[in-house]
Formats: sequence, C-alpha cells, structure tokens
Amino acid sequence: MSGTLYGVGVGPGDPDLITLKALKVLQSVPVIAYPAPEVGDSMARQIAASHIPDGLHEIIIRMPLDPKKFPDRSAYDAAAEEISGLLADGQDVAVLCEGDPFFYGSFMYLFNRLTEDYQVEVIPGISSLMACAAVSSTPLVARNEVLTILPGPMPEDELRSRLSQSGAAAIIKLGRHAPKVYAILEELDLLDQAQYVEHATMSDQRVGPLKEMNPEEVPYFAMILVRKGSVGL
Amino acid sequence: MSGTLYGVGVGPGDPDLITLKALKVLQSVPVIAYPAPEVGDSMARQIAASHIPDGLHEIIIRMPLDPKKFPDRSAYDAAAEEISGLLADGQDVAVLCEGDPFFYGSFMYLFNRLTEDYQVEVIPGISSLMACAAVSSTPLVARNEVLTILPGPMPEDELRSRLSQSGAAAIIKLGRHAPKVYAILEELDLLDQAQYVEHATMSDQRVGPLKEMNPEEVPYFAMILVRKGSVGL
Repeated sequence: MSGTLYGVGVGPGDPDLITLKALKVLQSVPVIAYPAPEVGDSMARQIAASHIPDGLHEIIIRMPLDPKKFPDRSAYDAAAEEISGLLADGQDVAVLCEGDPFFYGSFMYLFNRLTEDYQVEVIPGISSLMACAAVSSTPLVARNEVLTILPGPMPEDELRSRLSQSGAAAIIKLGRHAPKVYAILEELDLLDQAQYVEHATMSDQRVGPLKEMNPEEVPYFAMILVRKGSVGL
Repeated sequence: MSGTLYGVGVGPGDPDLITLKALKVLQSVPVIAYPAPEVGDSMARQIAASHIPDGLHEIIIRMPLDPKKFPDRSAYDAAAEEISGLLADGQDVAVLCEGDPFFYGSFMYLFNRLTEDYQVEVIPGISSLMACAAVSSTPLVARNEVLTILPGPMPEDELRSRLSQSGAAAIIKLGRHAPKVYAILEELDLLDQAQYVEHATMSDQRVGPLKEMNPEEVPYFAMILVRKGSVGL
C-alpha cells in the first residue's frame, strides 16, 4: 500500500502557532521534505524545528535564488520524483509549508505532480494574512465587506485600480515593490489607513503604521493591511 | 493590574485544528466568553470543548436570531461591560472565536469596545478559507494572482462584476444566497471551476463540485471556491 503525502502548514513563524493536527502528522511520519534556498536554511523547517522528532529522513528541496528562474519547474520535478519513490514504497511523507499550504504556497506544485497517483492530505496552517492582522491589531474584514489579496509584484495600474475598489485589502510579497505600493497608497489617500507588518510572529517582527516606515527597506515577507473604514458597530 | 483580553481563534471545527498558542491561553485563563445563538449551543465553545479546563467562569454572549437585528450592538455593549469588570479586577478573559478572530469574526466588536482601556492579544486561528481549500483539495491562489473574498449577501451586480474580474475567489456566507451565486457562476461559465464545501472539517462536512449540489439546500457555513485557471507550473 502506498504512503500518504501530507502538506503541513507550520504557521507564520511562532512555533506555538502550529496546530495539534500538524504536530500529530510530524510525530507520525518517517520522512519530511521542505523547500530551502540554494544556500542556507529552510524557513519552514526553522519554524517547525522544535516539533520535529530526531532521526527523520529529510528531503531538502533547493530552489534557485535567481528570481527569473523561480519558481523552478525542474526542482519540483526532481522533488516529486524522489517523494514518489518513497510513497510508492509505502512511506508517508510530510511536506513542511510556511503559513498555509494552499495560500500562495509552493506545496501546490508538489500537490499537482502527485495527487493523481497518491493519497494527499492537506493540513491547513495559520497564514501570514491572519498573523499580520493579529499582531497589528487590525481587524481584516467584517460583515458583507469584500477582502482582496494583492501581490506587490502586480502591474502598477492594476494594483491602483484594485486598491481603489477595495474596502479592505492585504498587499503581500512586498520587498522591492514596496516603494511602488507606498506611492499608490499615498496617491489614493490611503496611507493613514495602512498598517505595516514584517516577519509577523518571528523574533525580528516589525509592526506599525505604514507612514512611519521606509519603503526602501522592506523585505519580501512583509504585508500592508488597508481598511478604508472602521469595522464599526 | 488589569487583566488581558485574548481573542482566541479556535479554528474551523476539527478540535485538532487549534494552535498550541490557543491551547496555552485556554489553560491559563480563569474566564472564557463566547457568542451563542439566543437558544442553543455556541459553535465556538463546541469546537474548543475538549480543550477547556473544568471550572472556568463562562460568559455566554447571546445573539438575536433575527437577521435584521444581527449583529446586535446592545449584546456587544452588555458583554463588553461584563468583561470589562473582570479585566479591571485583574482577571484574564479569553473570547473563543470560530476560525480566526479578525476574519469576519464577531470578536472585532468586543475588540473595538475594549482595546483602548485594556491589553488585548489576538491569537490567530485556522480560518474557514484555508480549511475549505484543504478539504476540497483546491489550491487557493499562487504566485502573483489576486484572491478575492466575496460574501454571498452582496448585491447581485457587484458580485457578478467582482467574480468576472477575479482569477481566484472564495464566496462565503452562502445560505439563502446560494441560488443567486449559483446563477451568476453559471452565467459567467464558471460552474465547472467551482468547488463547494459546507461545514469544513466538522463531522457533517460535505465537499464536491458545485454543479453536483442543490443550491436550494445550502447552509450559512458553506463556501464556494473558484479558480479560473490551473495553478500551473
């Protein structure tokens, strides 16, 4: 009998923001796999480190640093093939995913490659969206409001248009796109309604009003939350 | 010294989808509070039941059943006053929240009433959004795609317009609005790309392609996930 592939959300950073269900999977599998940069540690593994039993077989999925090559089809092909061999051999494999596996997560590329041939179970995780709202004391969205999630690398015109139409929005994947986003928010007169969070729930977390931040110094794992009105009631 | 108010996300239904951090709060506070219908049990308390120590002081925040009166300002005023008395007395109070406290959660009304006078900490939870994606094996959103969260009670024209512009969308709070949503998706030729989930991760969970469901029999706690294209790669 084949093994099961688990996509395990390990949460945004704080090791306590993992679910009991994720813990149980980590304590039951013989193999874990996780993405990592070409050089250096895997963020997903670092987040889950205190929960990983000793002696597991670990598969490191190295991703190219060059953003032009990222995400890299061949890296997922190779990882899927290695994982497939273990699943076919009857071993369960847990893939560690920062945040939630299906919310802008790279797990979906492994999922697409393996779901036709194997049993796959996804364990949802606390996403950066909910973590940023919590640490910045910013209610995301209430009642019948629309919430829009906008990636920073989007074309400027589309980002401006979407933001002007959104009562509540989260802008993710900022990094070098932060100055563009900052300028659009200023232009739309939304700077005063924008909260900034970087590295939510991690030891180097920074939180505050966006207008107090320098948009030239924003990492990739940062988010801006915008609400046009009060939650009210 | 005043107590701390905790907004504790207890997750979507499966008791194992609670975080370690939420568990630690539940094990440390003398008082819990939770919303409940006028008659009957609180869903948030039911989800967390196995994790609640015996002997806690429990505050039940009863909400009117009449949707015209919901959410009810006076119910939150009264609950905030009762909780305020306990916080002023130095007791920590944990408010149980289905899913995540700040994602369409009623906790934000207590938060607004109490955050100026007391220390408030929000413990993010697994939201229905991530739970529905996981149980329906539907990747939500990848790379630089936009994700839009749309409440079912929205006006028909706006819902149609937003859906036609969204590569990936989640439609929540369905209930009696499901036939309207179904018709719009049919009109936009999106029925084949729509997954349906009700009561995600609960014992009465139902999951499947939307076109196999009867839109006349959809509860409030149901969601439709739409993706126009494959996640690809």
